[in-house]
Amino acid sequence: MDLNMDLDRKVPVLDWEPHLAARTKHMHSSAIRELLKIIQQPDIIAFSGGLPAPDFFPLREVGEACQYILQENGAKAMQYSASEGYLPLREYLSDALRKYGIPATTDNILLTNGSQQALDLIGKVFIDPGDYILTSRPTYLGAIQAWNAYQSRYHTVNLDDDGMVVDEIEHAYDKVLADSGKPPSFIYVLPNFHNPGGTTLSQARREQLADVVTKLDLAVVEDDPYGQLRFEGDDLPPICTYIPERTIYLGTFSKTLAPGFRVGWISCPEVLMQRFVQAKQGADLHTGTFVQYVANDICQRGFLKQHVKRLREAYKERRDTMLDALTEFWPSGCSWTHPEGGLFLWAKVPEAINTVDFLETALEERVAYVPGVHFYPNQDGGLNAMRLNFSYSRTEIIVEGIRRLGVALKRRLAG
Amino acid sequence: MDLNMDLDRKVPVLDWEPHLAARTKHMHSSAIRELLKIIQQPDIIAFSGGLPAPDFFPLREVGEACQYILQENGAKAMQYSASEGYLPLREYLSDALRKYGIPATTDNILLTNGSQQALDLIGKVFIDPGDYILTSRPTYLGAIQAWNAYQSRYHTVNLDDDGMVVDEIEHAYDKVLADSGKPPSFIYVLPNFHNPGGTTLSQARREQLADVVTKLDLAVVEDDPYGQLRFEGDDLPPICTYIPERTIYLGTFSKTLAPGFRVGWISCPEVLMQRFVQAKQGADLHTGTFVQYVANDICQRGFLKQHVKRLREAYKERRDTMLDALTEFWPSGCSWTHPEGGLFLWAKVPEAINTVDFLETALEERVAYVPGVHFYPNQDGGLNAMRLNFSYSRTEIIVEGIRRLGVALKRRLAG
Repeated sequence: MDLNMDLDRKVPVLDWEPHLAARTKHMHSSAIRELLKIIQQPDIIAFSGGLPAPDFFPLREVGEACQYILQENGAKAMQYSASEGYLPLREYLSDALRKYGIPATTDNILLTNGSQQALDLIGKVFIDPGDYILTSRPTYLGAIQAWNAYQSRYHTVNLDDDGMVVDEIEHAYDKVLADSGKPPSFIYVLPNFHNPGGTTLSQARREQLADVVTKLDLAVVEDDPYGQLRFEGDDLPPICTYIPERTIYLGTFSKTLAPGFRVGWISCPEVLMQRFVQAKQGADLHTGTFVQYVANDICQRGFLKQHVKRLREAYKERRDTMLDALTEFWPSGCSWTHPEGGLFLWAKVPEAINTVDFLETALEERVAYVPGVHFYPNQDGGLNAMRLNFSYSRTEIIVEGIRRLGVALKRRLAG
Repeated sequence: MDLNMDLDRKVPVLDWEPHLAARTKHMHSSAIRELLKIIQQPDIIAFSGGLPAPDFFPLREVGEACQYILQENGAKAMQYSASEGYLPLREYLSDALRKYGIPATTDNILLTNGSQQALDLIGKVFIDPGDYILTSRPTYLGAIQAWNAYQSRYHTVNLDDDGMVVDEIEHAYDKVLADSGKPPSFIYVLPNFHNPGGTTLSQARREQLADVVTKLDLAVVEDDPYGQLRFEGDDLPPICTYIPERTIYLGTFSKTLAPGFRVGWISCPEVLMQRFVQAKQGADLHTGTFVQYVANDICQRGFLKQHVKRLREAYKERRDTMLDALTEFWPSGCSWTHPEGGLFLWAKVPEAINTVDFLETALEERVAYVPGVHFYPNQDGGLNAMRLNFSYSRTEIIVEGIRRLGVALKRRLAG
């Protein structure tokens, strides 16, 4: 074929704005994803991402799983597959969920491209433009990003050391009714090692939450990416244990195995499954077959359990290192949460310091964090707060990064 | 933890309908995905799916790629990565696209979970509820399913042996304006080996289409999953070659490498990239890192090119086998297209036979196809047509399946 075309010619720039859907006005890039680009500079200490420790990825076991799958089941692992997900993996997950307190069978489980896709599918199935969502302030940034595309609005309840302040839910519900004339689409809860807050919803509050949402006939989205990563204290029953009929529970392999596979799941009432499966079909037909086979192989061999145990020990050490470094290097007037698991803690600095402005100083010192305001869906808080990740960096890097931030904070406070 | 909970208790069934978004009324399961379940019965001859030949998946090369990646780049391949996609793969794709006539650089390319996700992201970025889309009748089912979730409507132009009847576009555009008071969101075109039609848009019509959409200021979605699978004739320039400033071009590895990896891409004007990247971030953060590394490795080694050559030969043989069998076994009054590539042909049976009803008979004969009406977004045609896939089954199976369908057709016509 000879096209006789000049591919280096200047392509005209079209004005695409008039062609776009109204919802694009509500869509923005994630502050975290944009920060990810900055922190790829190798000399920056990154407390900003939500990245698992790369030094613990089970490369050998994944390699073995790949070889085994290609030998035994290669053609099926590379083919199109069911929208619901790979059945043996759904069997493994439903067993694991039952041990965790969730009454799931394979008919309740849909595999997704990580939890982020679960959030998107929930938006597609539940949110009409202008609908309100109840959530904590602060809350997970990625959820806001997923749902903004469906033109949602937010009413929030506070977060404290026992997690979401459940006492405030009914009042927030009333505000939603008053503002929009209809109930919220659902309430979004991160019960374990909250992102970004680092705190855990107490058992008493879980029970109280189950009661109040039942009274209000509210659906619950329970997002639990870190539940397996508890370093201290006992597991608490998922909210789904109390009210499975109205809870959509989200899990993921991103924090226990590897985020680069993009394998997560929804566990939900069977009557909802058809809705999510339809949404999933339209979104991308199904989650990657090959990566589901890999995750399944790693799980069925029993390897994941022992791997998660190792992660817990490593992340506990990193959390302890960060807590100690904060005590040692940060000025007075600062405070932080003491997460019992997960990847993040939430730190507050004196009110004189705005953490959006301070980020520039921090980056000059070659340290990155996420400013607190980004986690407030209505931008009404977090001005002197920041999220710090402790899972990604080795302990000596954590100490150095917290030290650098401490020096910068003290200098800023000094004037 | 002792929950003291009876996980086998009867979970109450909630009425979820009042909680759902209005758009769910427009969402339905794909007829093809539902058929996929039926055809998993092993004795059914499946002409219904769009599955590549499993006997040609390059298992050895994928295994080598996995091992190499895990050894050389394992931690990065398992970690979160950029929403735009893996840079070396975007470099490979932009080079390949330029050779194909598309003026792309890495800044024009976004990796997606197969083309299906590209269709979904296009829906999210372009479609307001009630918007019209221009497309051919018949058209690709998966596109309709993706866009129905955004509450789109459709005006259609006919498809003939030279592809979409471009002469009808302006009239369809006028109908959209009259019906909705605004232009269509875009026109959707499958130029090569149309799914389900099997026909290819002629070069004259491509040029004519470029002129008419420019005159109408219409955006074009050019979906080209099969372009590399041409068995006869010369490659024709993509529509994007003529009007890159207004074309969103979609490609995929699903038909050349393996669908189970879920790796496809969008090539679009740079001014649109930020929109798609935002939509992608909200949808699932990024396409699987590991599978992108695998696809990249297979491409960079130059293996894909020779693999596609093998596929072309194999699919040509299967197409020829199907064409010969149709001539031999089917009754008079039937007709079918003669695809120059791809996976499908479109067959018409005498008008006395409704292919939706006839499917039951076909399944009794242990053969499956997709009834034509499913490919008509307004259900206004295809009643005596069916889509037949020739890529999936071995030649002897193709002969037997077409023979069985022929017997059933003759019996139905006889009485």
